[in-house]
Amino acid sequence: MSPHSPAPAAYHTLDTDGIRAFLAGVPALAARLGGPAAHWRIREVSDGNLNNVFLIDGPQCGVCFKQSLPHVRVDPAWKMPLDRTFYEAAYLREIRPCVGALTTDILHFDPDLYVLVVESLDRHVVLRRGLMAGGDWPDAARAVGEFVAHGTFRTSLLAAPFEEITHRLDVFSGNRTLTRITVDLILTDPYRDHPRNHWISPELDSIAAEIRTDPRVRRRVGAMQARFLTCRQALLHGDLHTGSIMVSDDDTRVIDGEFACPGPIGFDCGLFIGNLLLHLFACRDSGGQDRAVRNIVQFWTSFHDTFLELWRTSARQDGNGDAYATTLFRNDPSGLRQAQADFMQDVTTDTIAFAAMEVIRRLVGYAHVPDFDTIPDLAARAGRQGAALALARDLLADPGLVTSIADLASLARDRTG
Amino acid sequence: MSPHSPAPAAYHTLDTDGIRAFLAGVPALAARLGGPAAHWRIREVSDGNLNNVFLIDGPQCGVCFKQSLPHVRVDPAWKMPLDRTFYEAAYLREIRPCVGALTTDILHFDPDLYVLVVESLDRHVVLRRGLMAGGDWPDAARAVGEFVAHGTFRTSLLAAPFEEITHRLDVFSGNRTLTRITVDLILTDPYRDHPRNHWISPELDSIAAEIRTDPRVRRRVGAMQARFLTCRQALLHGDLHTGSIMVSDDDTRVIDGEFACPGPIGFDCGLFIGNLLLHLFACRDSGGQDRAVRNIVQFWTSFHDTFLELWRTSARQDGNGDAYATTLFRNDPSGLRQAQADFMQDVTTDTIAFAAMEVIRRLVGYAHVPDFDTIPDLAARAGRQGAALALARDLLADPGLVTSIADLASLARDRTG
Repeated sequence: MSPHSPAPAAYHTLDTDGIRAFLAGVPALAARLGGPAAHWRIREVSDGNLNNVFLIDGPQCGVCFKQSLPHVRVDPAWKMPLDRTFYEAAYLREIRPCVGALTTDILHFDPDLYVLVVESLDRHVVLRRGLMAGGDWPDAARAVGEFVAHGTFRTSLLAAPFEEITHRLDVFSGNRTLTRITVDLILTDPYRDHPRNHWISPELDSIAAEIRTDPRVRRRVGAMQARFLTCRQALLHGDLHTGSIMVSDDDTRVIDGEFACPGPIGFDCGLFIGNLLLHLFACRDSGGQDRAVRNIVQFWTSFHDTFLELWRTSARQDGNGDAYATTLFRNDPSGLRQAQADFMQDVTTDTIAFAAMEVIRRLVGYAHVPDFDTIPDLAARAGRQGAALALARDLLADPGLVTSIADLASLARDRTG
Repeated sequence: MSPHSPAPAAYHTLDTDGIRAFLAGVPALAARLGGPAAHWRIREVSDGNLNNVFLIDGPQCGVCFKQSLPHVRVDPAWKMPLDRTFYEAAYLREIRPCVGALTTDILHFDPDLYVLVVESLDRHVVLRRGLMAGGDWPDAARAVGEFVAHGTFRTSLLAAPFEEITHRLDVFSGNRTLTRITVDLILTDPYRDHPRNHWISPELDSIAAEIRTDPRVRRRVGAMQARFLTCRQALLHGDLHTGSIMVSDDDTRVIDGEFACPGPIGFDCGLFIGNLLLHLFACRDSGGQDRAVRNIVQFWTSFHDTFLELWRTSARQDGNGDAYATTLFRNDPSGLRQAQADFMQDVTTDTIAFAAMEVIRRLVGYAHVPDFDTIPDLAARAGRQGAALALARDLLADPGLVTSIADLASLARDRTG
């Protein structure tokens, strides 16, 4: 099957009756749900911008049903190819063996209907919504850090020869439609006049204009565009915001990998940290702010330590990655530590810049985040958003402003006032 | 046609009779050669390590015939897939529109026999051989600089949207066999004990060991392995040494693109400069040394100025590249200049490191260069090679030693004594 073939004639968007018949026709799914199909409870939970999503509960178990639409879900005039569930399924197949239960199991993929069926997470909540409600998931940030570390290390040239890695990454070069959204909405539009951009006006007019016109920002943004598109360090999730993470009291899952693409590891880290920064600036109580800072630091520590431990283990076992070949550091643990520090400093630099760009695009670009909706007063909301934007602008304008994630978190905490 | 299908049953290695019949069977080639096939003069000129190469002269014109063998030409025990002429043909198709007469025209490609027929360059000499004979081609280095600038700019994300560029680069991810040779022979073997390595012994034993064991060198080499394999700036020639360039009094052509792969632009620049450095250290007369230094500087100036002019032109014409998007620098020529300086500094850093690695692999790795054969006295030859190796070691150990190509050329000239 090629994901690029024209939409098959077999494609049609399934309604609840269609979903029921579809699931009943796949024996493994019907058995998993249990009981007669007529008893299954089907409810729509579409929340993201792109796909139809339903949860189906049977007497035994539940499943999550996701189908691509030939347009953006929230904007039917914005036509779009169907292949995004193909890439989400391909991403799950790639990373599930690396990250285990930190994501969902793939139960079924239908290449004609572009239907993806995964585990149901109905006792979970979306991390963003949970944080907005003042909840605390002490283990979630650590789990996301482990997810990124395992998923990126195992798809990098540190872990295996290029013959194994490169063609696996090339598959995701085909994810053009969603990569174009990333390039436009995150990397380009906020730095030019574009009708898709919007912000709280007139309060944020001046900071939005400063971001568009500051020559230091523009220069850095240009470099980050090149970095995103040319640096193929690993397979990325590509859309790792707090709305792509489901949490329960004792479980964390990363979902919605449809933006998967090859790229620099700091892009995934930066998007997640950028969304934690947005949450931090939206928090008005110091307890919530402390938790947001703690989440940033815990995510990074977990990612950093897990990634480097995977690398050390690979080196000890004479791993056959072609980048930083293990033969270079055999019997030289201090050389390996220094190489790791160099590598991780580059990831840190990328992370800080992409975090800043995520903050910016979520406040002045097309797709905003709801975190600030908890602040009813518009002037207060604009004040918080302006402070977040000023921090992001400063981070892009001056790469020396902070050079570690701990310093980034401290500075952000100071700027929340 | 897929280059990865198993060798078709139709494949067989053609001898001179087979070549004559083959060319006679392709009307356009027969017409180009002219006259009856029996009158064509066929001579083998295989010189590289990999392929059979023949020149065929007809009454009207000549052609160059190149065929992949199922093994390394100079080592039949080293088995190898046939697909390298496929990638050479694909590379010519990609870059000929960008570089014009700086390479050869592709006249025919046969996907069953893996035969590539290109223009004959029988009034040309191989640049390396010409330099070794003390010749001077004042225009050649400039022409190679233009070749690299046009070929890499036009296949980069500075020139076009990622949808146009990425899948064109992905084709060359398939060039695994020859990329594996690059990874092993240039980036890995010289920095480990390997039976393929050899050098003038015992004279160079100590410097070869220093290069293998210096922790600063190992750390840098690890970073350059990652850089080569993960930084997809453009489509590279991949084997741009002085043996891949044909010169006449008024013409320069880059040939032998079978190693083509996506990668960092500084890899092509570094290989060419590395080979000019080898020639410089092999020169014993100050006139030859001056010419070698001049060639290094002229190559770089030509590459640098041409590349940045292509970029400025693209920006002026509102080019639609996704990296350093032109909208960032509209009405901001000074911002564009600074972004260009940042970009070119990265290419310079890569170039210096890859040049050093090329020097090293050509003196202590598997495939040496003949440039030093002009020094009959073995001790003198070892002395020159040792000086070149010490320079290369220092460049890798201390990234701050030189930060421009002009400084690199000066330092190298000083070190020739």
